[in-house]
Amino acid sequence: MSATRIILDVDTGIDDALALLYAVKSDDIQLEGVTTVFGNVSVEQATVNTLQVLELAGAPASVPVVKGADRPLVRKWEGPVVHIHGDNGLGGFRLPPPSRQAAEGRAAEYLVRKINELGRDLTLVFVGRLTNLAHALAIDPSIAGKVNRLVLMGGALRAPGNVTPTAEANIWGDPEAAHRVFESGMPITMVGLDVTMQTVMKEEHVALVKRKAGTAGERTAEFIEQILAYYFSAYEKQNGFYGSPLHDLLAVAVAGDPTLVGTEELAVKIETKGELSSGATIGDLRGKPDYAVNASVCVSVDSERFLSRFIDVLASGAPSAQ
Amino acid sequence: MSATRIILDVDTGIDDALALLYAVKSDDIQLEGVTTVFGNVSVEQATVNTLQVLELAGAPASVPVVKGADRPLVRKWEGPVVHIHGDNGLGGFRLPPPSRQAAEGRAAEYLVRKINELGRDLTLVFVGRLTNLAHALAIDPSIAGKVNRLVLMGGALRAPGNVTPTAEANIWGDPEAAHRVFESGMPITMVGLDVTMQTVMKEEHVALVKRKAGTAGERTAEFIEQILAYYFSAYEKQNGFYGSPLHDLLAVAVAGDPTLVGTEELAVKIETKGELSSGATIGDLRGKPDYAVNASVCVSVDSERFLSRFIDVLASGAPSAQ
Amino acid sequence: MSATRIILDVDTGIDDALALLYAVKSDDIQLEGVTTVFGNVSVEQATVNTLQVLELAGAPASVPVVKGADRPLVRKWEGPVVHIHGDNGLGGFRLPPPSRQAAEGRAAEYLVRKINELGRDLTLVFVGRLTNLAHALAIDPSIAGKVNRLVLMGGALRAPGNVTPTAEANIWGDPEAAHRVFESGMPITMVGLDVTMQTVMKEEHVALVKRKAGTAGERTAEFIEQILAYYFSAYEKQNGFYGSPLHDLLAVAVAGDPTLVGTEELAVKIETKGELSSGATIGDLRGKPDYAVNASVCVSVDSERFLSRFIDVLASGAPSAQ
Amino acid sequence: MSATRIILDVDTGIDDALALLYAVKSDDIQLEGVTTVFGNVSVEQATVNTLQVLELAGAPASVPVVKGADRPLVRKWEGPVVHIHGDNGLGGFRLPPPSRQAAEGRAAEYLVRKINELGRDLTLVFVGRLTNLAHALAIDPSIAGKVNRLVLMGGALRAPGNVTPTAEANIWGDPEAAHRVFESGMPITMVGLDVTMQTVMKEEHVALVKRKAGTAGERTAEFIEQILAYYFSAYEKQNGFYGSPLHDLLAVAVAGDPTLVGTEELAVKIETKGELSSGATIGDLRGKPDYAVNASVCVSVDSERFLSRFIDVLASGAPSAQ
Repeated sequence: MSATRIILDVDTGIDDALALLYAVKSDDIQLEGVTTVFGNVSVEQATVNTLQVLELAGAPASVPVVKGADRPLVRKWEGPVVHIHGDNGLGGFRLPPPSRQAAEGRAAEYLVRKINELGRDLTLVFVGRLTNLAHALAIDPSIAGKVNRLVLMGGALRAPGNVTPTAEANIWGDPEAAHRVFESGMPITMVGLDVTMQTVMKEEHVALVKRKAGTAGERTAEFIEQILAYYFSAYEKQNGFYGSPLHDLLAVAVAGDPTLVGTEELAVKIETKGELSSGATIGDLRGKPDYAVNASVCVSVDSERFLSRFIDVLASGAPSAQ
Repeated sequence: MSATRIILDVDTGIDDALALLYAVKSDDIQLEGVTTVFGNVSVEQATVNTLQVLELAGAPASVPVVKGADRPLVRKWEGPVVHIHGDNGLGGFRLPPPSRQAAEGRAAEYLVRKINELGRDLTLVFVGRLTNLAHALAIDPSIAGKVNRLVLMGGALRAPGNVTPTAEANIWGDPEAAHRVFESGMPITMVGLDVTMQTVMKEEHVALVKRKAGTAGERTAEFIEQILAYYFSAYEKQNGFYGSPLHDLLAVAVAGDPTLVGTEELAVKIETKGELSSGATIGDLRGKPDYAVNASVCVSVDSERFLSRFIDVLASGAPSAQ
Repeated sequence: MSATRIILDVDTGIDDALALLYAVKSDDIQLEGVTTVFGNVSVEQATVNTLQVLELAGAPASVPVVKGADRPLVRKWEGPVVHIHGDNGLGGFRLPPPSRQAAEGRAAEYLVRKINELGRDLTLVFVGRLTNLAHALAIDPSIAGKVNRLVLMGGALRAPGNVTPTAEANIWGDPEAAHRVFESGMPITMVGLDVTMQTVMKEEHVALVKRKAGTAGERTAEFIEQILAYYFSAYEKQNGFYGSPLHDLLAVAVAGDPTLVGTEELAVKIETKGELSSGATIGDLRGKPDYAVNASVCVSVDSERFLSRFIDVLASGAPSAQ
Repeated sequence: MSATRIILDVDTGIDDALALLYAVKSDDIQLEGVTTVFGNVSVEQATVNTLQVLELAGAPASVPVVKGADRPLVRKWEGPVVHIHGDNGLGGFRLPPPSRQAAEGRAAEYLVRKINELGRDLTLVFVGRLTNLAHALAIDPSIAGKVNRLVLMGGALRAPGNVTPTAEANIWGDPEAAHRVFESGMPITMVGLDVTMQTVMKEEHVALVKRKAGTAGERTAEFIEQILAYYFSAYEKQNGFYGSPLHDLLAVAVAGDPTLVGTEELAVKIETKGELSSGATIGDLRGKPDYAVNASVCVSVDSERFLSRFIDVLASGAPSAQ
C-alpha cells in the first residue's frame, strides 16, 4: 500500500514535535507540507520549532512550512501553555537555529491550493486548533468535498475533557473554528481523548527508542528523551505518575495506519455557547440521532501495536523515502 | 430500620403513578405528603392524577397533595408530553374522579414548612422538574442545610440524554431551577439515566405483578397493566422494543433502600446556557475536579433486586402502615 | 383623589431611605407594607435599615416589614454596593437600633396574600431587584392579572446603563427575575434612567428641605443631609459634580402622582443571555414591533415639579394620615 | 484634494448598485477594486450584479471584481433578502449579461495584497457583512494597522435596529466577523442607521436625477428609476411611505467627503451572544467608558448636501477620470 500523503498542521509543542518526527520517518506517511498555528505556543514560535524539528529529522528541504493563524477565529488567544510545553514549546530544549525558512504565503491559502491540486490524494492531519482549516473553508468551501479526509487530534466523546470537565484543549481553544469544520461536510476522523488517554508513553519506551536508535539516531533520540523528560514531569504534577499520552503522535499514526483504532460513525456537533460546555464535542449517542453522521470517532486503540510502532519509527535513523 | 419519611414531588405521568403506588405500599417508605409540578402534564392535571392514584392506592386521606409550579423558573413550558404519557398523563386510563381535594397553599411554602418542622427526619424525593424546590430555596435558603437529603430522578452523567444528546428531561425542563438546587449545598442523590436505563421493565414483570396481586390487588394491577401497555408502546416507537425503564419508581425505591445502587461522589454542575448542552448535568470526571463535590451520582444498580422488589411491593394489596 | 395604596420593595440603600421617607410622609401614598431584598446591601441589612428609617419617619408600627430574597433567582449576588451606599447602606450614618421587628413570613408569600386581598386597590412599587416579585409570581402566577400596577425603578430605554453600557443596576442584578416579571402580563410603569438621570438633586435642595423642616423635622432633615452628603460624594467621584439623581424616590413619587412623567407604551423585553447586554431593557422602537406592548416607559419628567414636591414632602414634620 | 482610493465591498443589492454607480462617477472617489459577499443576495449573484452595474456605469475594465465569502464566519446564512431587493437583487431589473468576468482569486487574499501594497493610500468601504474583512484579518492581522481607514455601512448606536430591535442587518448577519473587525484596531468610521435613516430619498429626487441626466445618462437614469421603484415599494410596505434611505450610498459618499457627517469618538463593541441583542453595536455612552475608543460613529448628516450631491453625481453621464 502506498504512503498516505498528508499536510500536517501543528502548534509545535512537545507532542507535536514527536508527531513531526513520526511524519518524516514513518514509511506509511508522505509529508507534503506543514502548516503552523497558535496554540501550545505562538504561531511564530510554532513556526521556528517546526523548522528546527524538520531539520533535525532530516526532512527534505522541499517540504514547505507555511505560517498560519495567530489567534482564534473569534475569541482571544489565552497565551502559550508554558506549564506543559515549557517556555519555548520544546520543554526548554534549544535546537540550533533553523537553516531553512518558512515558505511565502499563509496556511489557509496553501491549504486551499494543495487541496484543489491533490484532491482525494491528500489527507489533512490537524493536531492543534482547527483555525487554519476554518479559514481555508472560508476562502473556498468546496475543499470540504475534495480532500480525502481530515484526521484531527481533538475532542472527547465519552472521556472527560482536559481543559474543562467537558472540553479538550484543541477544540476548546477555538470552538467556532471547530464548529465550522465539523459542519463543513469534510470526512472527519476524530482522534480524541477517548483513545489518546489510553496510550500512555513511559520512561521504558523512551529507553527503548534510545537503545534501538543506536549511534545513527543518537541526536534525535536525545532530543526525544529530553523533551519527554519535561513533558512527563509536567504530567506527573497533574496526574501523579511519570509518563504521558502522546496525543498528536497518535493522530499522525492513525493517518498512516487507520487499523490502529476502532471507530464509531457518529453525528458530532461542537458546543460554542455553553458556560460549562464551550468546546465540548457532542456526539449523539442516543439510538436515533437528530443530526447527520459527520465523523468517525476513535473509541478504541491497539495501544501495544501503536507503542511498538512508534518506538520503531522514532528510532529509525533516516527519514522515509519521500 | 425505620421507614424513610419522604415528601414526593411528582408531575404525574405514568412512571410517577407507579412511584406513588410504590411510596404508598412500600414499608421502607413513609409518605408525608406529595407536591405537584408541571412537566409530563400541566400542574392541574398532575394534581388530579395524583389525588386519583393515591386514592386507588389506599393512601390515608391525611397525606396532603399540595399544588406547585405551573411553569419553569425562567423559561416557557413546552407543554405536556402526550406521546409518552397520553392525553391525561395516564395513557388515557380514566380513574374515578377523586373524592379528595388538594390541600390549601402552595408546594414551595409547604416544603419550607415541613423541612423546618422535620429537618433531618425528612427526605425529599423529586421525580419531575426541580422547580418547586428552587422556589422553596428562594423563600428560605436555610432549608438546604436542614433536610436529610434530596433524592432526585434526573440527569445523565455518562449516559446520553433522552431529550437532547446531552440532557435528561427533568433537568432540561428547568435547568435554572436545577442549577439553584445543585449549588444550594443540599445533599443530593442523583438517580439519572445512568441507572434508570439499566432497569427495563417488560411485559413479564407486569404479568408477575398481576399474578401476585391476586384478587385483593386486582384493581391496582389492572391499572398498572393498562398504563404500562400505553407506556411500553410509546417506548417501542422510540426504541424498538416493548418495555421501558421506570425512571421515577427507581428514585423512590432508592430513597427507601439506598443499597439498591452504587454511587460516585462528584462535583456536578448544571449547564444553563449552551445551545447543545442546556440542561446537561456535568460531573467533573477528571482526576482533580475544580468544583466541590455536591452529589452522590448513581452509577450502578442491582436491577434484579430492584425489579423483584417493585413486583412484590406493587403486588401487595394494602398500603404500608403509615 | 384618594391616596395610592402601595407595597414598597426596597434594598435600603440611601435613595431607598428617601423613598421610604417619601412613602410615609406623602399624602398621595398610603404605605401598606414594605418588603426587603438583597441588592445595595444584604437583605438582613436592608431589613434593619428599613425598620430604622420607618421608625425615624414616624410610620405607624402597623406597617409590616417583610424580609425577602437574599440572592438572585439564578445567579450569584455580587455583594453590597459599598462605594455608593457606604458600609451599612446608609452612608455610614448610624440610626438607633430599631424598636420594631420584621414581620413573620417571607416577602413572596406576603405579596401573594396582599395582592389576592387588595387586588386593583394595590399598587406595587419596586425600587430594587425584582426577585421577590418573581418568587411571588412563581407561587401564584394569577397575581399578574389582579394587582393594579407595578411601578418599578429600573432599566434604561434610550439612556445608557449605569452598571454596563446597556444595563441599569436593578435589572442587571437579577435579569431572570426581571424577565419573569416583564413577561407576566402585569401592567408595568418603568421608571428608568431615562427619567431618573434628569432629576438631579443638589446641595441647594437639601438646604431647602432643612430650612423648611424647621425644628419639628430636624432629626429627619439631618439624616437626609448626612446620607446625601455621602451619596453626592460618591456620585461626584463617578460623574464629576456634587449631586445625584434620586432614582428610587422618583418611582415612589410617580406611584403617587403619575402626572409627573410622560410615558411611551412599548414592548419591552429583558436580555438575559448577552455578554455585553445582559440586563438590558430592550424596547422595540421600530415602527411595528414584533412584541406585544407590556410597559409604560417613562421618557420625560417634570423635574421642577418633582423636586419641589419632594422638598415639601420630606420637609413635612409628620407622616401622612394612613 | 485628490480622490480617495477605495476598495468597495458589496452584496449587490439595490442600494449597493447605487453605491457602485456613485463610486464610479464621483470625482472624489477612485475605485481600485470591488469585492463581493453574500448578504442581500448570494455571493454568486452579487458578483454578477456587480459586473453588470460596473459595465453600465462605464467603469474601466481594469477595475477588478473579486468574489468573496459565501456565508458568515460561524453561523448559517439566512438566504437572500428577496422582499427588499427582489429575486435577483436588482428589483427584478434585468441588465445585459456582463462582458467582463470576476478576477481570479478570493476577496480576502485580494484585500490583504492591496492593503499591503497601498497602505495608508487605501480606504476600505464595506457596505455588506464584514466577513471578507474578518477573513483578511485572519490571513494577515497586520493589515489593521496599515490601511487608512474602514468606512462601513452598518450598526445602530442610538437608532433602533432594522432586523431586530437592537441590530442592523449588516452586523446582525455576521456578528462574529464584525466583532473581529471592531477589535482589530483598524480605524473605523461607522455609517449606521443613526444617519442613513435621516437621508430619505424620494420620487422627486429620482425625477431630478432623470432630468439632469439628459440623453447622455438616459440608460443609467432609467436603471436607477426602475430599481428604486421596487425599493421604494418594498419600504412603503414596511414603513408606510414611498421612499427610502440609501444606506450603502451614504457610506461611499462619506468616504469621498467626510464633511457630510458629524461623528462621535466612541468605544464600540459587538454583541455576539445575546438572545435579543445579537448583532447590536454597543457604544459606551456613559461618561467614562470601560472600553477603548475604536470608532468614529456618524451621528449627524447634512442630508440636503448629501441628496444634492448624489443627484449630481448619479446624473453625470460619464465615470470620473480614474
